[in-house]
Amino acid sequence: MSELVKVVVDAMGGDYAPQEPVKAAVEAVTERKDIQVILTGPEDEVHAQLAKYPDYPKDRIQVVPATEVIQTAEPPVMAIQKKKDSSLVVGLKMVKRQEADAFVSCGSTGAILVGGQVLVGRLKGVERPPLAPLIPTEKGVSLLIDCGATVDARSSHLVQFAKMGSIYMENVVGIKNPKVAIVNIGAEEEKGNALVKETFPLLKACPGINFIGSIEARDIPSGYADVVVCEAFVGNVILKLYEGLAGTLMKKIKGGLMSSFRSKLGALLIKPALKKTLKSFDVTEHGGAPLLGLKGLVVKCHGSARSIEIKNGIFQCVQFKQQRINEKIGEHILEMADTSKE
Amino acid sequence: MSELVKVVVDAMGGDYAPQEPVKAAVEAVTERKDIQVILTGPEDEVHAQLAKYPDYPKDRIQVVPATEVIQTAEPPVMAIQKKKDSSLVVGLKMVKRQEADAFVSCGSTGAILVGGQVLVGRLKGVERPPLAPLIPTEKGVSLLIDCGATVDARSSHLVQFAKMGSIYMENVVGIKNPKVAIVNIGAEEEKGNALVKETFPLLKACPGINFIGSIEARDIPSGYADVVVCEAFVGNVILKLYEGLAGTLMKKIKGGLMSSFRSKLGALLIKPALKKTLKSFDVTEHGGAPLLGLKGLVVKCHGSARSIEIKNGIFQCVQFKQQRINEKIGEHILEMADTSKE
Repeated sequence: MSELVKVVVDAMGGDYAPQEPVKAAVEAVTERKDIQVILTGPEDEVHAQLAKYPDYPKDRIQVVPATEVIQTAEPPVMAIQKKKDSSLVVGLKMVKRQEADAFVSCGSTGAILVGGQVLVGRLKGVERPPLAPLIPTEKGVSLLIDCGATVDARSSHLVQFAKMGSIYMENVVGIKNPKVAIVNIGAEEEKGNALVKETFPLLKACPGINFIGSIEARDIPSGYADVVVCEAFVGNVILKLYEGLAGTLMKKIKGGLMSSFRSKLGALLIKPALKKTLKSFDVTEHGGAPLLGLKGLVVKCHGSARSIEIKNGIFQCVQFKQQRINEKIGEHILEMADTSKE
Repeated sequence: MSELVKVVVDAMGGDYAPQEPVKAAVEAVTERKDIQVILTGPEDEVHAQLAKYPDYPKDRIQVVPATEVIQTAEPPVMAIQKKKDSSLVVGLKMVKRQEADAFVSCGSTGAILVGGQVLVGRLKGVERPPLAPLIPTEKGVSLLIDCGATVDARSSHLVQFAKMGSIYMENVVGIKNPKVAIVNIGAEEEKGNALVKETFPLLKACPGINFIGSIEARDIPSGYADVVVCEAFVGNVILKLYEGLAGTLMKKIKGGLMSSFRSKLGALLIKPALKKTLKSFDVTEHGGAPLLGLKGLVVKCHGSARSIEIKNGIFQCVQFKQQRINEKIGEHILEMADTSKE
């Protein structure tokens, strides 16, 4: 049997904490034998939640006490510094001390980003750790990198994102020689803003990635590229518009279907098929967003995540650990640094 | 009767030229009596298209010869300089000489942007003319400003966009006291990239606009704001993702509906309602994108526009002229300049 992967789950992060994180932990250890989950949070509360589930492998869930909770609205840097006994800080420190392989939280994005960098620390050579969710496409999924970690990034950061994203897609998602593209406002090399114009030739010259050029936002949902590289502000707009537009379209369609007797009848018939289709296009179905390039894995799930997303986030950590992603990223980033010195 | 509004239509711009632009011209003058259309392009070709329509008010369509065509792939600045007898340059110069009120084209965006600024010229006080399409939302439409004219814009440009956008929404679309928001990656004032952080307080302090703060991309489709202010790169990503995501979702849904006999039957019943719903959410249904802040109106329609979009673009020009939008923009921009000098 392969080694147990130890994943810390922030029991107090997200809109539905501690219920959903605890439920996810129980489901994860029940479904897979190679996972151990460590829940951080107030002992009483976490145990009260666990008590709801009489039948799960109890030896693979551990509770580590943490009395404080970081709220979404708190300024991240200060929260990390002050709330040393928060579920988030306690969890991240376990990864830092290598008592756990990974950390999953639905809590404050800001605090996770800051905490990941400050408490867990960057891999040698990594300039900025990007937040990189999988987004649904016609063909399956693409990696959107960076979607919120480093606003106003530099071109060298984007090149590292392309590299880390390629390693992730190849090893975690299993896409051989993943196609990398940079988000742009036209297909031609001379198009774009200053950052894209500076980054484009660097990506073209970057060894070991399959760079296919620019991608216009209209081609992202079709799955034209496997790794979609962009600066965090743009990436965040893409991710959130994905969510918002899908939601609005569905509301519109549902409203439209209720407009006549004929369409109401049809709606009844198509309901199961429609539900299945929409599920495949739901951003939350694909687990959380990993913060890449750290000395351990940190995964951010939606604030509104339910147990299924958190569980998928936990499974992602297992794949990540077993595929030795961090070791691979570390080697490649150092190689890149060597090449650029030559 | 109100005065005739003279609109030049680039007969040679777009994927379906000259058929669709000519058809749009015929439809526009047939539907409304207050429009005169001037078609620019090779006389023979344009007349051959017009000959398809025996019955339209011939006195309100005029053909002005232009022998050259600017292709989408041509570098814009050089194309404008060299192809002086192109349908685009000839048309824009008519607006410049006030022989026409407005210019509508489905041709090269780059050439239209450059030509608009260089040939028609900016209104006094306008720093950068933004491209501002109407995008469909749950509530109706919002104005996305800027969606592609000025990449790497400065904060003062964005403040002018907010002002011009407000005037447009109030007078052309008829929304009283339109809500203005800036695209951001969080709701709080301290969130964002350098540009947004700099622009936010300026918008807050700007008189005469109804600034409601940040808008996250997820809230754009719901119609949370009427005027959505952003830098051109981000705006272009939003516009194109709107198109791409809607298309992909529809393909997915159609595929899903063909998956069983039950859902196929349902699909037949919902088809009319679904079609109507999707039409209301089609970016191309809302006419073209005006390039605001010029000494005349320039409207860019999709390269793939059919006559209905071009016709809506022409109608937009009438509203624009009759509501004296340019005069209003001119006054307000000068007021702003005066205020900032105080």
